[in-house]
Amino acid sequence: MERELVDWLRATLPRHPLLRVGLGDDAAVIARERSAAEGGDLVVTTDSLGDGSHFLLTEVEPRWVGHKCLAANLSDLAAMAARPTAVVVSLMLPRSHADPVALARGLYAGMLPLAERFDTAIAGGDTNCWDGPLTVSVTALGRTTERGPLLRSGAQPGDAILVSGELGGSITGHHLDFIPRVAEALLLHERYDLHAGMDITDGLSLDLSRLCIASGCGAVLDEQAIPISAAAEQLAAASGGDALSHAFSDGEDFELLLTAPQEVAEAMVADRPVECGLTIVGQMAEGQGLTLRTADGKQEALEPTGYWH
Amino acid sequence: MERELVDWLRATLPRHPLLRVGLGDDAAVIARERSAAEGGDLVVTTDSLGDGSHFLLTEVEPRWVGHKCLAANLSDLAAMAARPTAVVVSLMLPRSHADPVALARGLYAGMLPLAERFDTAIAGGDTNCWDGPLTVSVTALGRTTERGPLLRSGAQPGDAILVSGELGGSITGHHLDFIPRVAEALLLHERYDLHAGMDITDGLSLDLSRLCIASGCGAVLDEQAIPISAAAEQLAAASGGDALSHAFSDGEDFELLLTAPQEVAEAMVADRPVECGLTIVGQMAEGQGLTLRTADGKQEALEPTGYWH
Repeated sequence: MERELVDWLRATLPRHPLLRVGLGDDAAVIARERSAAEGGDLVVTTDSLGDGSHFLLTEVEPRWVGHKCLAANLSDLAAMAARPTAVVVSLMLPRSHADPVALARGLYAGMLPLAERFDTAIAGGDTNCWDGPLTVSVTALGRTTERGPLLRSGAQPGDAILVSGELGGSITGHHLDFIPRVAEALLLHERYDLHAGMDITDGLSLDLSRLCIASGCGAVLDEQAIPISAAAEQLAAASGGDALSHAFSDGEDFELLLTAPQEVAEAMVADRPVECGLTIVGQMAEGQGLTLRTADGKQEALEPTGYWH
Repeated sequence: MERELVDWLRATLPRHPLLRVGLGDDAAVIARERSAAEGGDLVVTTDSLGDGSHFLLTEVEPRWVGHKCLAANLSDLAAMAARPTAVVVSLMLPRSHADPVALARGLYAGMLPLAERFDTAIAGGDTNCWDGPLTVSVTALGRTTERGPLLRSGAQPGDAILVSGELGGSITGHHLDFIPRVAEALLLHERYDLHAGMDITDGLSLDLSRLCIASGCGAVLDEQAIPISAAAEQLAAASGGDALSHAFSDGEDFELLLTAPQEVAEAMVADRPVECGLTIVGQMAEGQGLTLRTADGKQEALEPTGYWH
């Protein structure tokens, strides 16, 4: 089984200039960048997705599962403002599947266009059949730029808080087909004086609370400023719920959460440097915890809610 | 759950000089080596192990599962004669387990001593709870030495074939508690003119057949020269089977399979450079496929058998 898949991958995977040894040996060899300009420190992240938890193989085509798993890892590199270099892929394929090799091909078919888009080598992997459900484990490698990594811990009281795109309602489709904000993060990190950043995977309020803890600050969010996605509005309309709660708490937005000095943030919004849009949603503050500034100017404590793993 | 585990890991994982950003951000940052002497190309390998396939959680302590999964990945770096730098660990923990956090701690407790032994940072990871069985996915990063990577494809007809240690019967315990041949591979690659190498994971005959294909050669094995482990002898005695078959076909030896010019190989055996021992088991040959040279001097075709994934 693995041999058949490896043969297919050898024929299918594009060549990558940095990949000295690809599939077929015990490990992959990726050329060292020869100058500081070419590459900074190594950034590495890993993420496993499992059938029944992160996707339902009965409802989703394998290529979207592959896309999602690679995209989630690239989103973690974007969160560090790192340039992706290579990924390795580890599959546990269900023996009960009618055609495990076709399943694996489908997964890779979803990863290939995304890897190509971000000039990322699929450097190797491991493929097993087993009696459990499908798991897809991806490890992504990247390089910091000359600006260094963008960390969660750099925010300062008074910083403006920005988010890319729109939030909430990812479950209706965005969680599968999103494009990670790699290009946006690199551009913004290069062009503006960002203080802190991460990607929003478990809901704005929960992830912002993590950024607050890492930076030793609190944060105030403006109720009226939150960019609520159309999907969140639709979910709220259908359930009679609250669209803002979806924007605060829904998982898997995979948008960027950034902080920068207020005047920098205002320039970032005015310049329109990225197509997905940037919105100032509040400010970092002294102290700790989240505060919500409501439409009528009141401030109330905001309990972080979102997806706890 | 993940927060509790991350707190524990932060308190437990030793500091590593290369690790600039460890647990708690979106990705880990590993310092770039600043000179050619310090580091060559990046070597990366990934391996997933699943409960029921690679181990039985009902029969094995979690720390041995952790040990095995890290050791298997380090063995792949050894196979390339690469120096380990860092690993990331992705866990899918069974929700049905009485105490998933204790399970995760147990897995890490098995990885920590091995990581320390090989001066390898546990740089980060991902932890999920799900409804499936335990899977442990490790990605290991290393650096080639000045000699470059040791590949499967470098063997030449006439090369002697060497193996480290003894083969077969791993199922009786060695597959869990083995120490990967990292130090041995680095020492041998530095000191001797090795042509090709890999680790033996799926049985000598199957893995040698892969090395033959990669190098475009055949190989002749000496029946009398194969170092058969005591465990293989015991298994054969118990089943009335053939110990040599165990040495040829049993999976998970995690020994080194090397080729070198005959005179180099003889010096390697005479010098006794590694405690585990080295044995010349045959020669690479023109053509393709495996041949067995029996005790009475006859040569017969040897069908590769072993563990096919």
